[in-house]
Order: sequence, then structure tokens, then C-alpha cells
Amino acid sequence: MSFDWMLFALFMGTAMAAGSTGAFFSPGSWYDRLDKPGWTPPNWLFPLAWLVLYIAMAVAATRVAVSGHPGVIYALAIWGLQIVFNTLWSPVFFGLHRLGPALVVLLGMWASVLAMVVAFWRVDLTAGLLVAPYLVWTSYAFALNFVIWRRNPGASEMQAA
Amino acid sequence: MSFDWMLFALFMGTAMAAGSTGAFFSPGSWYDRLDKPGWTPPNWLFPLAWLVLYIAMAVAATRVAVSGHPGVIYALAIWGLQIVFNTLWSPVFFGLHRLGPALVVLLGMWASVLAMVVAFWRVDLTAGLLVAPYLVWTSYAFALNFVIWRRNPGASEMQAA
Repeated sequence: MSFDWMLFALFMGTAMAAGSTGAFFSPGSWYDRLDKPGWTPPNWLFPLAWLVLYIAMAVAATRVAVSGHPGVIYALAIWGLQIVFNTLWSPVFFGLHRLGPALVVLLGMWASVLAMVVAFWRVDLTAGLLVAPYLVWTSYAFALNFVIWRRNPGASEMQAA
Repeated sequence: MSFDWMLFALFMGTAMAAGSTGAFFSPGSWYDRLDKPGWTPPNWLFPLAWLVLYIAMAVAATRVAVSGHPGVIYALAIWGLQIVFNTLWSPVFFGLHRLGPALVVLLGMWASVLAMVVAFWRVDLTAGLLVAPYLVWTSYAFALNFVIWRRNPGASEMQAA
């Protein structure tokens, strides 16, 4: 199984384009003022964690794509679905300050990432392991978004300081 | 070549998730007050045009995916890239009011849609034809975004009425 660098560049470019929403819509004074639980990660951890997760998912998608396995088609279709949810979350959370709809986006993202882990795993064990941390991180993000949503009922009307 | 409805549902769901940014970030008083050219389409045309384009691209992606052609892998990787750019544009344009960066997003979208038309065409002529109008619409959107950007230098600071 040879590694296709051109395919990797395509998947990595897709992941970076999705991740650009994190730069366009980043934590600011509105986010700082929200009531957050003690286990909220520090702001500097987010871009670092995402960079690692994006590289891992692009490597995994490349391995799956060149495998020649019949499960590749569904695996790549699910890749497309999860990366759209991934693109969508930051604008809804940090852009619109709508914590409830952001939670719905994360639910769709969580379900599609779970489906991707299973689909990748079936095609290539290593690829499945490479995207498993992404599922863990998404579960953590979902729990965090849920608690912040419950603690801040007036968040969408709250002005930035 | 049989039509796989499950795959179609996946691609259509992905397209609809991308299109949800058009509902989250829709034209409002800020957009109404921009200086726009006479050939700007009426607001009601956008969701209608996108619905038709999303259905056509999901049908095309499904036809390509089940074809068994060796070009499928690249075609589906490019599908993922263009749909991320598609998701990204509305938040940057309507959410951030940043017309220049939105133009850069559209440039990436245009290039990836062009690549998709070529990749789909090679795998399945009908699929290529089904996504050709998407390239035309994206070219039109690019021209419109460009003219609006040139005519409204202070758009990002302009307050909604």
C-alpha cells in the first residue's frame, strides 16, 4: 500500500479549509465572559489539538482511499459529511453565539465522526486508530458545549465587552 | 450501474448541512444596504438555485461513487474540498461582512468545483453535465462578490440598519 502525497495534500487542504473557521471565528471577549466548567481547556490548546487531529484524519483518509477495499466509497462519503459539520460549528458557536444550534451541529458531527471511525477501521485498522482521538475530542467538545449551553441561557443576547 | 439511495442520502445530507449556513447566515439589512450591480439576483432566487444545485451534485456524486472507475477516489476527495468551501462562504460574507476574504473563499471554491467537473466528467459524462451548472453559478457568484467588494470599501465596518 503506497502513500499518495497528492491525495494527502487534497485531504489536508480540505481539513485546513475547515479549520480556517477557527481563525475566522475565534474565542473573544464574549467567550471569555461565559460561565464555563473547571475542565474547560485553555484557549491555546484548541488550535494545537485541531492541527494534530487534522493531520491524523488526512493521513487516515489517504490510507483508506488507496486501499482498494470495497468499503472506500462509503468511508469517503462519510469523510465529506463530518468535515462539513466540522466547518459549521465555529461560525454557529463563536459567530452567532447560538449555543443550542451549535450543540445540534456537534451532535451531527459526533455521529458522523463515529461512523467514520467504524468505516475507516473496517478498511484499514491503522486508519481507524488514527481517527479514534478525533471521536474522543468531539465527545469532550459536545460535553463542554452542553454544559456551557445550560449555564448561559442568555448567551445569544450577551454583548461582547 | 445501479443507483445507491443510501449513498445519495449521505451526499444530499452533506450538501444540505453545507447549505444550512445560508439559513444561519442569510441576507439582512446589512446586505440590503450594500451598493450592488443591476444584475444582482433577487434574494428569493438563492435558496431555490442552491436546492437545485445541491440535488444535482448529490445525484452526480452518487453516480460517480458507484461507477467502479479508478478515478473515483480523486473525484470524491475533490467533492469533500469543494463542499467545505461551499460551507465556508456564507459565514465569512454574511456573518463577518468581510468581502475580500469571502472572495478568496470563492476562488478556492471555484477552482475546486472546476476540478470536480473535470474529475466527474472523466468518470461519468452525465455526472459531469450534472455539476456543470454549479460551475456556472459559482463563476457568477464570484463576479458578483468581486463587484460588491470593489463598490463597498467600508462594508466590514458598516452597521446593520
